Amino acid sequence: MLSFETIAEAHDRIRPYIHRTPVLTNQTINERAGADLYFKCENFQKIGAFKARGGTNAVLQVAQNREGTAITTHSSGNHAQAVAYAARQVGLPAYIVMPRNAPQVKKDAVRGYGAEVIECEPTLDAREQGVRDIIARTGAVLVHPFDDDRVIAGQATAAKELIEDAGQTTPFQVIMAPVGGGGLLSGTALATHYLSPGSRVVAGEPAGAADAVLSFQSGKVEKAPFIDTIADGLLTSLSERTLSIIRAHVSEILTVSDAEIVAAMRLVWERMKIIIEPSCAVPLAVVLKHPDRFAGQKIGIILTGGNVDLGKLPF
Amino acid sequence: MLSFETIAEAHDRIRPYIHRTPVLTNQTINERAGADLYFKCENFQKIGAFKARGGTNAVLQVAQNREGTAITTHSSGNHAQAVAYAARQVGLPAYIVMPRNAPQVKKDAVRGYGAEVIECEPTLDAREQGVRDIIARTGAVLVHPFDDDRVIAGQATAAKELIEDAGQTTPFQVIMAPVGGGGLLSGTALATHYLSPGSRVVAGEPAGAADAVLSFQSGKVEKAPFIDTIADGLLTSLSERTLSIIRAHVSEILTVSDAEIVAAMRLVWERMKIIIEPSCAVPLAVVLKHPDRFAGQKIGIILTGGNVDLGKLPF
Repeated sequence: MLSFETIAEAHDRIRPYIHRTPVLTNQTINERAGADLYFKCENFQKIGAFKARGGTNAVLQVAQNREGTAITTHSSGNHAQAVAYAARQVGLPAYIVMPRNAPQVKKDAVRGYGAEVIECEPTLDAREQGVRDIIARTGAVLVHPFDDDRVIAGQATAAKELIEDAGQTTPFQVIMAPVGGGGLLSGTALATHYLSPGSRVVAGEPAGAADAVLSFQSGKVEKAPFIDTIADGLLTSLSERTLSIIRAHVSEILTVSDAEIVAAMRLVWERMKIIIEPSCAVPLAVVLKHPDRFAGQKIGIILTGGNVDLGKLPF
Repeated sequence: MLSFETIAEAHDRIRPYIHRTPVLTNQTINERAGADLYFKCENFQKIGAFKARGGTNAVLQVAQNREGTAITTHSSGNHAQAVAYAARQVGLPAYIVMPRNAPQVKKDAVRGYGAEVIECEPTLDAREQGVRDIIARTGAVLVHPFDDDRVIAGQATAAKELIEDAGQTTPFQVIMAPVGGGGLLSGTALATHYLSPGSRVVAGEPAGAADAVLSFQSGKVEKAPFIDTIADGLLTSLSERTLSIIRAHVSEILTVSDAEIVAAMRLVWERMKIIIEPSCAVPLAVVLKHPDRFAGQKIGIILTGGNVDLGKLPF
């Protein structure tokens, strides 16, 4: 089990490379929710998402421990940019396997950080084979998007900052994050366990990628019954590692529909004037869906990222 | 001429009712612009725009001086909400004349602050007649959107905060605002004159509402040769009052096309993850259009507001 010291060391390690993002509140959204919401704005993080934390923590250790002379990963999303960004900070080459149908803008962003993009067929098998090929060819070290303690420790620093900055005088009753592969949720649950043990951790998941809620119930890593959601950052299933942390330290996982996700996303755009991606709106959608469950509570919500394609908005 | 003391008093007066908005920077946009940009984020202001400052300063004085028992104005945009918001703070009724073709969402927002909306034909004559009728009927006091020293003093507090928060150790070489009726630009110019006299004040104006640049040259209040711009907050002509302040304290006014405005707006949305309205993107569009003129300079830009209709985005 990841210790508090490991998370605190991760925080010290990555601090020069990340933003301490602000915690924002909004009166209108509080009135709408009937609760007291604190938004940790990782949409303002380096590369536009919390993934910069975990990726940087892992890459810095690879460099410091001289575990390899290059970094690799596979991702179609924010983790790709996070690893590319972090590798550039330490001067290591990065090889990022991306499905060839990933948006051009995302491939360009990864290349913009100086990484090499290796395109593959859009299947998990092809991605994993792509990474194996790179490791064989270059000796690169894999930084997995979530099934890695160093990544989880890095992601935990978002909740650590949230608790330090807004949960000291009056502790949070609830701390929320969305769940995809579970790296952020595991880190959030651990940081909360150590720093704000009276807080419940509640996760939000799209109904159209409902693997975590099933895995949470069964105790085994389950696949989603179907994948159909706008929350494209949350399509992945958990790993044994993340499931075991989540089962130990998360109180519940609640699902929301895409219509509820888009409504919550729009509310944040309109009232807070900040850009969040659909995956990011899932916890707020949960709060708005269950006003009875959260009435009057102090709730911390991690807004995970702001990387959206403005040409393809859902409104 | 508005004194520094008047601006400082305005600031003290409105402080309990407004946000001290953050000043943000963005590395990517700095690289793109070749300059060092500081964005004063009035899109995070109460009612989503800087207009809360001027409206509140005027309305508070009407209430404190017992000049009347109601407030009125005409506006289709942010000033309507600002006056409604401020009137509610002091418990005075507000009567807002709005063109009947104003977006329903804006009428609803004004009503949401408890004000009465009086619809009129969408002409300046009809609006002004509407206000005269209300004054005759209710004895309400008019708070003009910009041709009012109290409004200008309120708007000046945005630049005052910008200079206090980011222009102390190293002064700004340039401070920028967009220009419509000139209330914000006048206030910005005066605050800069008093607090950062070494800074040049540069305004941005849409080429499709180019009255201020003509008035600035001729010394008389001119009308725009034509009105055709997405920057719907900047359609108004100057008044004698704002023109005289602008002629005294603004260095230049530069125009940009709608394509340049939309590109600058999109850049801010994509890289800063914040929502700004088209009018708001005009100064950045000016900087990006004239890299030679601003190369290497420290520039403060007032981002005026974030009230956009998400259903009608230009991208």
